[in-house]
Amino acid sequence: MPFANMGNAVPRFLRSSNQFLASLRTASAAKVLVKENINPQVITMQYAVRGPIVIRAVEIEKELEKGAKKPFKSVIKANIGDAHAMGQVPITFNRQLLSCLANPALMKTANYPSDVVEHAKVLLDACGGRSCGSYSQSPGLDIIRKHIAEFISKRDGFPCDYENVILSGGASESIRNVLKLFDRRDAPKQSGIMIPIPQYPLYSASVAEFGLGQVGYFLHEESNWSLEEKELERAYQESLKKYNTRVLCVINPGNPTGQVLSRENIETIIKFAHRHHLFLMADEVYQDNIYAKGSKFYSFKKVINEMGAPYNQMELASFHSVSKGFMGECGLRGGYVEFFNLDPEVYVQFKKMTSAKLCSTVLGQAAMDALVNPPKPGDPSYDQWLKEKTAVLASLKERATLVKEAYGSIDGIKCNEVQGAMYAFPQIMLPRRAIEKARSLNMEPDFFYAMQLLEATGVCIVPGSGFGQKEGTWHFRTTILPQTAMMKDMLERFKSFHTKFMKEYK
Amino acid sequence: MPFANMGNAVPRFLRSSNQFLASLRTASAAKVLVKENINPQVITMQYAVRGPIVIRAVEIEKELEKGAKKPFKSVIKANIGDAHAMGQVPITFNRQLLSCLANPALMKTANYPSDVVEHAKVLLDACGGRSCGSYSQSPGLDIIRKHIAEFISKRDGFPCDYENVILSGGASESIRNVLKLFDRRDAPKQSGIMIPIPQYPLYSASVAEFGLGQVGYFLHEESNWSLEEKELERAYQESLKKYNTRVLCVINPGNPTGQVLSRENIETIIKFAHRHHLFLMADEVYQDNIYAKGSKFYSFKKVINEMGAPYNQMELASFHSVSKGFMGECGLRGGYVEFFNLDPEVYVQFKKMTSAKLCSTVLGQAAMDALVNPPKPGDPSYDQWLKEKTAVLASLKERATLVKEAYGSIDGIKCNEVQGAMYAFPQIMLPRRAIEKARSLNMEPDFFYAMQLLEATGVCIVPGSGFGQKEGTWHFRTTILPQTAMMKDMLERFKSFHTKFMKEYK
Repeated sequence: MPFANMGNAVPRFLRSSNQFLASLRTASAAKVLVKENINPQVITMQYAVRGPIVIRAVEIEKELEKGAKKPFKSVIKANIGDAHAMGQVPITFNRQLLSCLANPALMKTANYPSDVVEHAKVLLDACGGRSCGSYSQSPGLDIIRKHIAEFISKRDGFPCDYENVILSGGASESIRNVLKLFDRRDAPKQSGIMIPIPQYPLYSASVAEFGLGQVGYFLHEESNWSLEEKELERAYQESLKKYNTRVLCVINPGNPTGQVLSRENIETIIKFAHRHHLFLMADEVYQDNIYAKGSKFYSFKKVINEMGAPYNQMELASFHSVSKGFMGECGLRGGYVEFFNLDPEVYVQFKKMTSAKLCSTVLGQAAMDALVNPPKPGDPSYDQWLKEKTAVLASLKERATLVKEAYGSIDGIKCNEVQGAMYAFPQIMLPRRAIEKARSLNMEPDFFYAMQLLEATGVCIVPGSGFGQKEGTWHFRTTILPQTAMMKDMLERFKSFHTKFMKEYK
Repeated sequence: MPFANMGNAVPRFLRSSNQFLASLRTASAAKVLVKENINPQVITMQYAVRGPIVIRAVEIEKELEKGAKKPFKSVIKANIGDAHAMGQVPITFNRQLLSCLANPALMKTANYPSDVVEHAKVLLDACGGRSCGSYSQSPGLDIIRKHIAEFISKRDGFPCDYENVILSGGASESIRNVLKLFDRRDAPKQSGIMIPIPQYPLYSASVAEFGLGQVGYFLHEESNWSLEEKELERAYQESLKKYNTRVLCVINPGNPTGQVLSRENIETIIKFAHRHHLFLMADEVYQDNIYAKGSKFYSFKKVINEMGAPYNQMELASFHSVSKGFMGECGLRGGYVEFFNLDPEVYVQFKKMTSAKLCSTVLGQAAMDALVNPPKPGDPSYDQWLKEKTAVLASLKERATLVKEAYGSIDGIKCNEVQGAMYAFPQIMLPRRAIEKARSLNMEPDFFYAMQLLEATGVCIVPGSGFGQKEGTWHFRTTILPQTAMMKDMLERFKSFHTKFMKEYK
């Protein structure tokens, strides 16, 4: 490597054609940091929701802005659970509240309802110097932790101590913080983390980033993505060859699969976790997004407590967020973890770890307060708040049905009922020739399909391979978030592409 | 372990005295997660700025609220660079802008200056669905990245490509993300990270959390915490026995030491880093906080470019934040990293890694926009903005002088000039008997001193041992943030405590 020690300072006489390119390559080996010597976990991890298809979608959007001619006029992003980006309107109460925190002068001048002003006052009083620009304590403002604890107590019918609640920048940050506790790269066997397949790729990405062991258990597509004990048992037993499996993650309602677990199912899962001495992580960020008749949300905390001893002694971390539900405030980054039965010494370590991140955004914390402590009947803001909340949830329900019916009617697509959450995960019966074509391009077949769909129609979905799926099956995740007119447009574009695609590769 | 499999369900007959406690201990061994089996890096890491002294300070505050009698009426928190909590008033322009993003209706109704409304419109146009509640792209909103790039170009006189800028929740998150790239627990030698001693404990905490090797280089207290080549060389050479040392972190202006590096000094550092093929990390979050006569801020990016080849080929990551400077918006969580000469493949990996965190808070990003893209001369908001900015910086300068003079006049305290940033790091000449007393309590002597100070006066500072210091010397970090009246009160309390303490342990 003749130029290994000279940085990128390529001598001028070399700056031509191939010689120049070759020298650049050699010179780039002189970088301190190259792909070959960075943290290998970073290379391993993947996060499909923002992967290459989405990157291409953003490029196409920019091309369209610059006047490029395409067979479509807009990109429809059904790749990510981002409600406002798809036209959902913010809840007025929340935004009035946040604007008061941002500019307290508005509490006098903006002519807001009195409950908004009072609510803002309570939160400001809890901020250092009465400013949302001061750090909160690392776990969040006590007053908001208390409101969250009251919300949980009321929801479950069991007490919740606010000391067990920690706020974070969205639920993702909390989930990552909890997973990080289990990293035992120093031990003979790394900790195994049981996650559903298909799963939300935050889990696989974080498991990879922290060097943990991914233990996938398959959801049963034929019975609407149910979670079956036999499969949990198989996955657990097989994992033990390689890992010290210690955690069971459950996403309910399901992402990307949209199922809602029944109470019986949750009991079975809890018993399984207890039998194998597993730490439970319950991702319940879609708890307000329940659409199907007969479906109801049961929190793991509630069921574990109703089951009594010994189950009510189990360790549980459950997660919630302002990004989903009816507020859909992804950009504000508010979320929390509630611990139950966590070892006090472990909790001290957890709080110490999060303290180095200082605190989560105070305005994100305030949005969480608006979620768990909304206007009450009789408050000036109550009627409008209720009307807006109800309208958002009703519209999501309508679109959940629309998506299932639309995809269900297309030849070569199978789509389960969207019982909850914000996604459908339809199966595509890809023709053999399409699979071969994809393989010849070194692509996953559903990635190939999704990329073709994007280039032909502007519709952006995420291939099932990013979430995991049974070998030999192909899926995609689509959100149900485009507003009804756009959703109909999207389904039209999709149907027309799919028909052509199937014909081409038949 | 007779009760190992029964969770915490201790039989009633055991619930007394020692037997009960012993059984509890056995039962707690049945937890999935105990201190003995969590991620050992989490146990190792420490973050003194929010350590035991601060936890006790918060407790004392709660005790005072409940009417407890103490020899003081309030806790003064000089432990953390949290300007608003210490009475600094937010910049009006920033807060009007944020309130428009929170509630766009205000753009019509609030009677704000027209430049605020136009600024808000530009940012909202860049948000999905024109809402700050939608996710941004993971690196942040392009328009804000472009404004940051313009700010950097103007500051340094060298071009900055916005593609090299990534926003984050405060600078801390970016610093942690960059450090994470170097984690090579898989390699024969872990990456060594050179950090100043004393240092801001975010560095030591993150280095420990990621299992990296901490390579401390001592700042030279006698010459106002200067950074000397000989000491860099010593630290580097010694580190090689244990680590593959790859990174040099510099904090300028210094935290906790308040020094401002001269241009010559920066050149020396850059040459040293080049000679040893080190990746440069420049923590420049205090770039607006320069007080001393003759001191000036030079960015590493500027100096590296002015030095020309081969130095302008070096890899550099530099960091900035809305939390410090004149805005002091810690709670909003806005910050960025700018990469220079980063290997493009590494950058792809970095962006992939941050994408799993979705995005930083959009309102925190907007605050960063307000910092780098403030009102211009002639804009309706300009005069007020300039007046407020100037007043904050002038007041900080006044307090920087006040602190140095006050501590400098106390017997048994040595205090360097606070040239910049927001802290002083005075040395305490602890009497031998105080050191022995501390040791007998299994405490660091400066921790003992700080805890006594807190209990006696309510003044909360951070012991030097949390930042690192030369063996046998003892310090503390205090912010210069309490407003002038409170600052004077704090200095009175401190002086009276210190005199008594020195007398007691003479």
